[in-house]
Amino acid sequence: MTTHLPLGPGAEFDAIRTLLAAWGPRARGIGDDGAVLDVPPGSKLVVSTDTTVEHVHFRREWLTPEEIGWRATMAALSDLAAMAAAPLGVLLALTVPTAWRDALTPIAHGIGEAAAHGDIPIVGGDVTAGDRLALAITVLGHAAHPLARSGARVGDAIYVTGRLGGPGAALGAWLAGRAPTLAHRARFARPEARIAAARWCAQQGATAAIDLSDGLAGDLAHLAAASGVCAEIDLECLPVSEGVTPREALASGEEYELLLTAAALDAPAFSAAQAGLALTAIGRVVPGPAGSVRLLDRGGAVELPSAHDHFAR
Amino acid sequence: MTTHLPLGPGAEFDAIRTLLAAWGPRARGIGDDGAVLDVPPGSKLVVSTDTTVEHVHFRREWLTPEEIGWRATMAALSDLAAMAAAPLGVLLALTVPTAWRDALTPIAHGIGEAAAHGDIPIVGGDVTAGDRLALAITVLGHAAHPLARSGARVGDAIYVTGRLGGPGAALGAWLAGRAPTLAHRARFARPEARIAAARWCAQQGATAAIDLSDGLAGDLAHLAAASGVCAEIDLECLPVSEGVTPREALASGEEYELLLTAAALDAPAFSAAQAGLALTAIGRVVPGPAGSVRLLDRGGAVELPSAHDHFAR
Repeated sequence: MTTHLPLGPGAEFDAIRTLLAAWGPRARGIGDDGAVLDVPPGSKLVVSTDTTVEHVHFRREWLTPEEIGWRATMAALSDLAAMAAAPLGVLLALTVPTAWRDALTPIAHGIGEAAAHGDIPIVGGDVTAGDRLALAITVLGHAAHPLARSGARVGDAIYVTGRLGGPGAALGAWLAGRAPTLAHRARFARPEARIAAARWCAQQGATAAIDLSDGLAGDLAHLAAASGVCAEIDLECLPVSEGVTPREALASGEEYELLLTAAALDAPAFSAAQAGLALTAIGRVVPGPAGSVRLLDRGGAVELPSAHDHFAR
Repeated sequence: MTTHLPLGPGAEFDAIRTLLAAWGPRARGIGDDGAVLDVPPGSKLVVSTDTTVEHVHFRREWLTPEEIGWRATMAALSDLAAMAAAPLGVLLALTVPTAWRDALTPIAHGIGEAAAHGDIPIVGGDVTAGDRLALAITVLGHAAHPLARSGARVGDAIYVTGRLGGPGAALGAWLAGRAPTLAHRARFARPEARIAAARWCAQQGATAAIDLSDGLAGDLAHLAAASGVCAEIDLECLPVSEGVTPREALASGEEYELLLTAAALDAPAFSAAQAGLALTAIGRVVPGPAGSVRLLDRGGAVELPSAHDHFAR
């Protein structure tokens, strides 16, 4: 925690006290200008920043303050998962409007629970006043061999973790003025960064990975472009949440599941090691234009839906 | 750069293109979920996050967009200086309101210039829409022996780099509706993180450091508290900018100069090594209540002014 907290002395120290009280021993190295961490010898440092903003990524009436903190932290940690990195620490830059000051404790609890879930210390951050709640979260991790988007090779199989479509279905319901099902809501509100799953796959020879934030169709195109390959997926193979069609699942963003490529992964062994989480082969890397995605429906090529669009655009 | 840029596809890729065009080869490792960096063997990782927000830290009419980018970056890097860390990389989380979209290129240039000034790569970040311009900047560095606030010992001398009071004088002028002098304005608009200066002092045996963000009086109290000592400073020794009184200098925040303790530092050798930057002995660490600061004026104890307050509080 830097001393630079322009909420002003009273509110400033109140905010620090609130955060530290919520985090307890999970906050470490706070009180100097920077936090000091060890990167294990032979490991690379992996870093990423992700921001969650009210009205852009969520609306206040959709989520509890705990869920806002949890979701923002897991969304950031999901980038470490995509690199198959082990987390080292989390830093937070919170912008807290006056109307949200009373929610700071539950937001901090949500952040702290997400960090505790992965046994990750909170090593710094700051709090500023502002008009909209925003959580800019930087995650630090390490990996001897970080997994990149660029490693997919022709002949690899394409895999996805979990079941897709829940977050998109929840968002669709809210935007239509309906309440989402509890299962869809939970997938939006309580995502889990697939850190252990990614490291398992990396150890088993995964060649590339990306986390699903823009939706499977768009993120697969990113991976295929980075790898200079074409990706072919089978619509009927997509693992979907209850009440979601495969086409809806293709466009559902903010899943924070992993999309991976590998010569072959043992899906039952994965599920056994990952508390029952599904790993599903959905297609293959084939020769073709770099960055292209081919969608097959019972063997025939069909058109891709457009990529996930952010609701507040 | 994550793929998660909820300005929407058009504006999203425009924003990425704008930033990458401004940064050129200074942006490295962009295009994966996280950036991969090497921490030299035997070094600790040092990390810090600092946020600069419109209306909290500056007003639009005070600074050019280039200066906003430069200043926010240097303010963040100043925390690495305070730890005597060598920079490894910078990550940015930018919140860009519609009214600021056209200023993104010059803001990016200011960030890029500040990074180039220290030969520091920009290794990631993201851009979101929002109501207020905000720059949440995470800095990564490394040091074999990071300098902490807690190392000051009774008998140490207290030093400060540069000349103080310019940023406070500029702020005072703006808030009074006057134009600041060019010299005071430059100290506010174009601070320089004292990274090389800090590493020089650490090599010469500095025992503790903090950067001056809240003002000398307040930051010295933080250092004394962390070290469990009392600090005594001589008002007439304070190095001040032209037109600033020592009492005004004591309360001037956002200086981004360094406050250091050491058994002894060679000020002329420091200045020779640091392009003429001043290093001034301003007091000493003495027995007394932990965290207390004593101000002497020609040998007699006088009352401290109140700490720097943020203008937008």
